[in-house]
Amino acid sequence: MDSWVDGQPADALSLKDRGLAYGDGLFETIAVRRGQPLLLDRHLSRLMDGCSRLRIATDHDLVREELVAFAAMLGEGVLKLILTRGDGLRGYAADPQAQGRRILQGSAAPAYPIDNAEQGIRLFPCVTRLSRQPLLAGLKHLNRLEQVIARSEWQDAGHAEGLMLDHAGRVIEGVFSNLFLVRDGVLITADLKRCGVAGVMRAELLFQAESLGMPTQVTDITLEQLQWADEVFVCNSVYGIWPVCAYAALSWPVGPLTRKLQTIARALLDA
Amino acid sequence: MDSWVDGQPADALSLKDRGLAYGDGLFETIAVRRGQPLLLDRHLSRLMDGCSRLRIATDHDLVREELVAFAAMLGEGVLKLILTRGDGLRGYAADPQAQGRRILQGSAAPAYPIDNAEQGIRLFPCVTRLSRQPLLAGLKHLNRLEQVIARSEWQDAGHAEGLMLDHAGRVIEGVFSNLFLVRDGVLITADLKRCGVAGVMRAELLFQAESLGMPTQVTDITLEQLQWADEVFVCNSVYGIWPVCAYAALSWPVGPLTRKLQTIARALLDA
Repeated sequence: MDSWVDGQPADALSLKDRGLAYGDGLFETIAVRRGQPLLLDRHLSRLMDGCSRLRIATDHDLVREELVAFAAMLGEGVLKLILTRGDGLRGYAADPQAQGRRILQGSAAPAYPIDNAEQGIRLFPCVTRLSRQPLLAGLKHLNRLEQVIARSEWQDAGHAEGLMLDHAGRVIEGVFSNLFLVRDGVLITADLKRCGVAGVMRAELLFQAESLGMPTQVTDITLEQLQWADEVFVCNSVYGIWPVCAYAALSWPVGPLTRKLQTIARALLDA
Repeated sequence: MDSWVDGQPADALSLKDRGLAYGDGLFETIAVRRGQPLLLDRHLSRLMDGCSRLRIATDHDLVREELVAFAAMLGEGVLKLILTRGDGLRGYAADPQAQGRRILQGSAAPAYPIDNAEQGIRLFPCVTRLSRQPLLAGLKHLNRLEQVIARSEWQDAGHAEGLMLDHAGRVIEGVFSNLFLVRDGVLITADLKRCGVAGVMRAELLFQAESLGMPTQVTDITLEQLQWADEVFVCNSVYGIWPVCAYAALSWPVGPLTRKLQTIARALLDA
């Protein structure tokens, strides 16, 4: 598959890049259908927030142009954008004038079992906990060792995702998904002010639910609340929504609100 | 300056490297004098510990051989080794068979002001806190955004280092150094079981102090304990020891134990 660095075809990166040295950068994983990058405004909005918080200077119009052009070339699949702070010298101090380096990579859409969306999935109970870091919470940054370790906890195909808690035992998210639960008709997802990635599909579903008049709540979630949920599902901007049918000894039916939002997510990813 | 990837001269890296994608790897920064990599056994020992904890398969004899050969070529300066989990596909799951990728880069020794070692330095009081993550604590891994953010807190040359606390307010380390304090003749440094990097010079100084019959303590340190310290210094394996003369409103004289250990560190880095 093709890849670009700063708008030019390339398959290699400078060894001095601070993305490699320190994970000093951000990324976005964008579904592409019929040559279009999907949920592009939300991806760009999260990227801009990340650039602002990490103070990575970036021409956002140029990023948008490149994403659109790359998606047109890719046609179908997944487009990954990595934005690093560019080359560094020795040491953590960053050049405040440095421009972000744009790395675009294309790949085929992942071939997930159709049952994930239809029957629902089992969540693996990860023992790896998310650490509390408000300065990075919500960002899709390149420091992902917690996810790498959590994902290494299970190899069996029987678990399509894993659930991660924070050090206080709060329910936060999947390894590569956000989590929602439904209780008495209210759509609930974790507050990500301490840790976690504020997913693009999560934001879109909160928006869609509010548009439909469905009450939503962004709050701290305990394992006990999970236990009493009527419906549980995970989501991301590539696969849409997977109902969760089991986690450890808990189980849930695939519920009507999950199916309703799944139909909406499917339409968004089938644009 | 020269650089090698897996033993071959190279100045670029595969865009698929998991070091870039997730910070999935480790690094060591090694002083080189007269063609010799200094404190090599301690650097390799920490690297092996990191590979074992992150389950990165690595031929450690080969790593040693390459470090020795690269240092001989470099002559004088600093050798940086980055060890990543190699190329990945999409997703966090790692290939358990994957071999670590070895990236070696040489640079000139940093030109720190001589006053840092002679007169001592002022520590900047960083507001960026280190997050608690026992699974990564002590490792010199590639997830370094906390250090990048902390180092961006000051630009003035009047602060040669910054002090980082954890979220509970414990005194942990410098941004690129470990911290020691001396109180009633006891050499004290922070317990790094929750966060922090277990520095090679820190380990060496604890060993040297014990060899000299100097009592040592590895424990949690509060700001109040720092306030009552007789001597304070920071250290790493490139610059050795810098006495700390001030932090916020606190100040300390350059003490005799600091000078004694500084002489030892200097000898180790002048091999």
